[in-house]
Order: sequence, then C-alpha cells, then structure tokens
Amino acid sequence: MSEPKSLAGEAEQLDAADGLAAVRERFVLDDVTYLDGNSLGALPVHVPARVEDVVRRQWGELRIRSWEESGWWTAPERIGDRIAPLVGAAAGQVVVGDSTSVNVFKALVAAVRMAQEDRPGRDEILVDATTFPTDGYIAESAARMTGCALRPVAPAEVPSALGDRTAAVLLNHVDYRTGRLHDLPALTAAVHAAGAYAVWDLCHSAGALPVGLDEHGVDLAVGCTYKYLNGGPGSPAYLYVRRDLQPRFDSPLPGWNSHAEPFGMRSGYAPASGAVRGRVGTPDILSLLALEAALDVWDEDGVSVAAVRAKSLALTDFFLRCVGAYVPDGRVESVTPAAHAERGSQVALRCDDAGEVMKRLIERGVVGDYRAPDVLRFGFTPLYVGFADVERAARVLARTLAG
Amino acid sequence: MSEPKSLAGEAEQLDAADGLAAVRERFVLDDVTYLDGNSLGALPVHVPARVEDVVRRQWGELRIRSWEESGWWTAPERIGDRIAPLVGAAAGQVVVGDSTSVNVFKALVAAVRMAQEDRPGRDEILVDATTFPTDGYIAESAARMTGCALRPVAPAEVPSALGDRTAAVLLNHVDYRTGRLHDLPALTAAVHAAGAYAVWDLCHSAGALPVGLDEHGVDLAVGCTYKYLNGGPGSPAYLYVRRDLQPRFDSPLPGWNSHAEPFGMRSGYAPASGAVRGRVGTPDILSLLALEAALDVWDEDGVSVAAVRAKSLALTDFFLRCVGAYVPDGRVESVTPAAHAERGSQVALRCDDAGEVMKRLIERGVVGDYRAPDVLRFGFTPLYVGFADVERAARVLARTLAG
Repeated sequence: MSEPKSLAGEAEQLDAADGLAAVRERFVLDDVTYLDGNSLGALPVHVPARVEDVVRRQWGELRIRSWEESGWWTAPERIGDRIAPLVGAAAGQVVVGDSTSVNVFKALVAAVRMAQEDRPGRDEILVDATTFPTDGYIAESAARMTGCALRPVAPAEVPSALGDRTAAVLLNHVDYRTGRLHDLPALTAAVHAAGAYAVWDLCHSAGALPVGLDEHGVDLAVGCTYKYLNGGPGSPAYLYVRRDLQPRFDSPLPGWNSHAEPFGMRSGYAPASGAVRGRVGTPDILSLLALEAALDVWDEDGVSVAAVRAKSLALTDFFLRCVGAYVPDGRVESVTPAAHAERGSQVALRCDDAGEVMKRLIERGVVGDYRAPDVLRFGFTPLYVGFADVERAARVLARTLAG
Repeated sequence: MSEPKSLAGEAEQLDAADGLAAVRERFVLDDVTYLDGNSLGALPVHVPARVEDVVRRQWGELRIRSWEESGWWTAPERIGDRIAPLVGAAAGQVVVGDSTSVNVFKALVAAVRMAQEDRPGRDEILVDATTFPTDGYIAESAARMTGCALRPVAPAEVPSALGDRTAAVLLNHVDYRTGRLHDLPALTAAVHAAGAYAVWDLCHSAGALPVGLDEHGVDLAVGCTYKYLNGGPGSPAYLYVRRDLQPRFDSPLPGWNSHAEPFGMRSGYAPASGAVRGRVGTPDILSLLALEAALDVWDEDGVSVAAVRAKSLALTDFFLRCVGAYVPDGRVESVTPAAHAERGSQVALRCDDAGEVMKRLIERGVVGDYRAPDVLRFGFTPLYVGFADVERAARVLARTLAG
C-alpha cells in the first residue's frame, strides 16, 4: 500500500491564512494536540494571575469587604452580561451560577409553570431522546415534580410530537455525541406554534457557533462555561431567561440571592426583577472570577463568534478530509453530519474499538475523548486549535487504527 | 465619669495560656480585628499556592487528565470525608457541592419523600420561624413541589407542633442572628418520636462547636464551608445523609454525577450508592480544591473541635465581660444567650442605630457585621481570633457607642 498523500503542506498554508492564529498565544498549550476543548477548555495565559489576585488580595486582604468593593455580589449578572453577546442575547437576560443540571431544573420547571398558567391542561414535557444524560434525568425529576409526563423524542420528531398537552421542550443545540447541530430557529418556532416553551441546552454550541437566542425568540436556555468558553474545571453554568418572560419566571430554587431585597432578611419571599431572579445561593467566587477573566479572550481584535464559526467549519472540514485521505475506507465512520448547517464544532467517528483507540491516541499525544459505547470524539476550539494540529491528529489516528 | 478598668492585662494572660494561639500564624491577618469569620473565614496562608497549582498545573498542563490523575472526579466525596469528623460523622456520609440553598432543597424533598413512603398522610413541613431567610424560601418551594404545607414554628415550639402530619422539620443548629445554639439532640429525638425526619442546617455551628450528627441520629444535614471552615468566598456547601437512609435518598436533582455509572451515558437514571447519591452536576473544582486545602488547618497539632469549642466559649464570655465593663448599661442589649449550652460562637448586640454603629466600627478597624434591622453581629473564630482582639473590639465599640 502506498503512503497516502500528505496534507501537511496544505495545513501550513491554512494556518498562515488563519485570522485567529495569533489568539493561540493567549492559551497555555504544549506539544499535545488538544482536541478535547469541548470537554475542558485550555487555560488562558492570563487567568492564573487573576485568580491569584482574587485569592490573595480580594479574599486574603479585603475579606468580607470584597462582596461590595471587589464586585463579588454582582458577579453572576455581570458575567452573564459578558456571555450574553456570545449567545446572541441583549444584556440583562443571562445570569451565571450553579451547575448545568441545576439550571436545567430551574428552566424546565419555570417553563412548565408558565405553560400551565397559560392553559392548565398542559402536562407533558418533551425531551431530546439523544440528550446528554443529565438533561434527561433532570427532566424526569422536573416532570415528576410538576405533575407532567416526560416523553423522549428524537429532535427531528419534535414537530410531530407537539400538541395541546405539550408544556415545555428541552433540546440540545448540538448533540454531545454526534456533534449534530439542531435547527434552533425552526424547532423553537414549532414549539411556539404549539403554545409551548422551548428550553435549549447550549453546552456544545456556545462559544463555537452563533446561537441567536434573542433573534429566534428562545424562551429559556442553559449552558456550561468550561468547554468553548474556557472557564476552568466545573466553572459555573448560566441561565438565559428572555426579558419579557422574566416577570413570570417562577423558580423552583428561590434562594436568598434571587430576593428583591436579599439583605432585608425578610421571612417572605419576593423575587427580584430581571435575570437576577435566576440566582439561588451564595455565588462561587473563585470559579466565577476565573471564568470572568477567561472571557477577556473574546475582547481580542478579530475574535468574534462569526470568525470562530468560520474557522470551526474549516477545521472540521479539513479533519474529515485528512481522515478520508489517511484512514483506510470503512475503518471508521463519521457520525457527524457533512452539511455545515447540521454540524457543531466536533467530529465524532464511530469504530467498535473506540475505547482502546482513544487510549492509544492519548498515549501518542492526541487528546480527544471516548463516549460509550463506540465513539471517538474530537473537539475543535477555533481559538487555539490550528490546521497543523488537525493534520497531525488525523495522521496519528490513521497510524493508531492501523494497529 | 471615671475610665472603666482595663481588661487588656487579662487578655494578655489569656492569650499566653491559649493552646490554639499558634494556629493564628496559619492565617493571613493584619491590623484589622476581624470578627466576621462567621460570614467569610480568613484566608489560610498555604491556600494561594495550592490554588495556583490547581490552576497552572492541574488545569493548565494536565487539562482533562486531571479529572482522574488529580482526583478531581472524586473530590466531592473525598472532601466530604474531611468535613465528616468535624460534624461528628463517620466517613461516607458527606458530599460537597452546590450551594447551601440547593442542598436544603435536596435534603428537604428527600426527607418528605421518605416520610410519605413511611406513611402517605404526612403533608406538613415545619421550619424554624427565625431561620436565615433562604432556608425558609427553599422550604416553601419544597413544600409546594411535594404537596405539603409549610408551617413556620419557633424552635422551642417544635415539640408541641409535631404530629402525625409532620413529614420533615428544618432547623438551624445556631441562629444566624442571635447566635442561639439549639438543642439538636433533644429536638432530633422529638422529631423522630413523631415519626418525622430532621434536617439540620449547620452553617453557623460546623467548625465552631461539636455537632454529633451520628451520635444524635440526625437524618440529613447541610452546611456552608466559607464561615468557620474558611473555604473561601462562596465555596461549595455539603450534604450529610445518614448511612442507613442513603438507599432511600431520592434526590429531586438527580444529575449525572449521582448516577451509578456516570460515564455509561445511559438514558435511564440509576442512583449511585452512598453519599455520592447527593451529587448533581460537574463539581466546581477551583473552589472545591481551595476548600480542601483550607481544611488542612484541622490537622495541626492541638486543633480539634473540642479545643475550638472551649476557646470559643472563653472568647464570647470574655467579650461579654469586656462589653459589660466598657459600655454604659442599657446602650446595647445582648440577644445571645448567657448559658453556654445555648450559645454558638458569636455575640449579637441589639441597638437601634446598629447599622450606623457597625459602619463606624469598620472604619475603626473592627469588622463585624450588621443584620437588619438592629443587630451588631460579632463572630469569633477560635483558630485565629485572640483575647486581645476581643478586648480591643469591646473597647472600640464602647468608644463608638459613646459617639
């Protein structure tokens, strides 16, 4: 068998023409080809100094004064406003805090309550049958606690599954396993046409492609910040509540941070107005402020969601080409859609021995991840992944698959 | 009016005899007399270097590998086991993560579900009427979502309010405002005698006095870690579920981290066994590992909950004596019980102009806090507060109250 034609030269040209190439310097990287930023984003170079300041000066020296003087108290909504433009939301609609799972619970319960207030008979929640499992587990609990039935449905089947009984629909913008990008505008419109509320999980799309929450009239959305937003391990998630729905947002977790007068120490609950209504307990300051620092990367010249999306598609296109050129036909099968309109920022390749293959890939310095039972998952973070990385990953993959 | 007799000499003697005096060196302190550790604990000296290692090496260099290699994945239960002895619990019953408010929700809903499984007619939750507000707000939501009525009751009235309808009782070990220590053993026994479940909030007691969760048969408990445990601003809270109740713990927030096989990516939920069942979403690593580092202080020679409690009572006794000696009669009124068995680790003084007085105290380098409408609150963290601090605080308070 002849050696396949190398695409290394083409990778070099693509890197030379890449308008985001310089942003890579903003991240701590090494010889490893890191294609797992869709699980944990790389560390931005300036974040450690910011965290050190939070710990040594804000906590160590100012102590309790920092709640006001260092802006700790308002961090959830301030950082929410930094995320807002990345998901196509005007200010005042995003708040950061708690995990994605907890925010799914808040959003879904609130959505059902609004739907039942509109029309009491609505008693069904539809959930993406291929969802990342936690969304399904939490949706089951939200259904149980609001007297609804939960019905798992493939996203493509949602329009036909909608009906008078549908209260809320929980969908993923990008499928965590296949990397499929779902049609948020069309599905949201279909949900609205049925009189129900759409809750979108943006974990695998925010920071990698345009979301357009305001433009497409999404009702509620949640997402994590440790993937394409590079906020750090377990950094807090966010919740979007569309402005006109905020007065009706009835949280199942009405902690004191969401009170209209949190330091009034009132025994009766009165919700704050605005996105703050989505807060719960005391915010996790170290992680929040690490995330805030990480978001500075988006203020660099030339960095925009549009630029990131263009490069993301170029990276995944090129990866698929390299895999096609280097890997023998039939050894792996891409489960990621070929059409740009249906592709997120990852490529998922199916092969029976995926677990073992990923282990060997990681030993050889190409880090993706394995998702049971048979998927090799490669994430492409346009802010720091280049075309030479992509070519190398495909080359090492081909060698690894050859045994 | 003659100058009151100074107690500075006695403070010096007490500090000289203090077995915990050397532990103060483990904390970052300055000229400020910091009596607000019951709101935000001071920074342990060694924590910044540990956080830096987590950020630069674990996140920056190892990246995704740290979930396994740096022990990130098991941090919630590992750190729970560090907290367990501080609250009188054997290992395997405490898990760290989420805010106190979120954990109150988990604990209270799970308690109601167990009670209703025991006997379907139980449809009432009792809550401490003087609770820190968030517990009451969350209890209201838990009641609403489990079909219960919520009944606020003064802790002393709980025994007479218990009955066949009581499902669960949510109580504070130490009152956030007055510093009153409630009788956990007797109240827990009364709740059990009525066939109900006791949920204790330990925010203002853990790390300051013995709790004895196992000894007293407490069912469920929650607490924060940023007060007497010095975990840092907004560090995650913890949840205790008594071992024999764990198989029945039915969480309203069944996130993927509590699944028996979290990486199995199963669409059906199957809860893990043990304390892990109380986990929800991806844990907040930066804050968790800062907390883990902070807990090292408890491994110092001579540091124990018993030693801390003895010094705590000596500090609050001495503060009350100094206030009695320095402040004119009637200018302030202590709302903290005089009896040791009823006192936490704080002293609360009532005066009509408390907000203004605290502002001036802080300007003069004595940091306590103000709780609306009329309370000056002083917290005493025995690990780093000394008797000279106490004497100075009372002296500056007297001068400030004199106008």
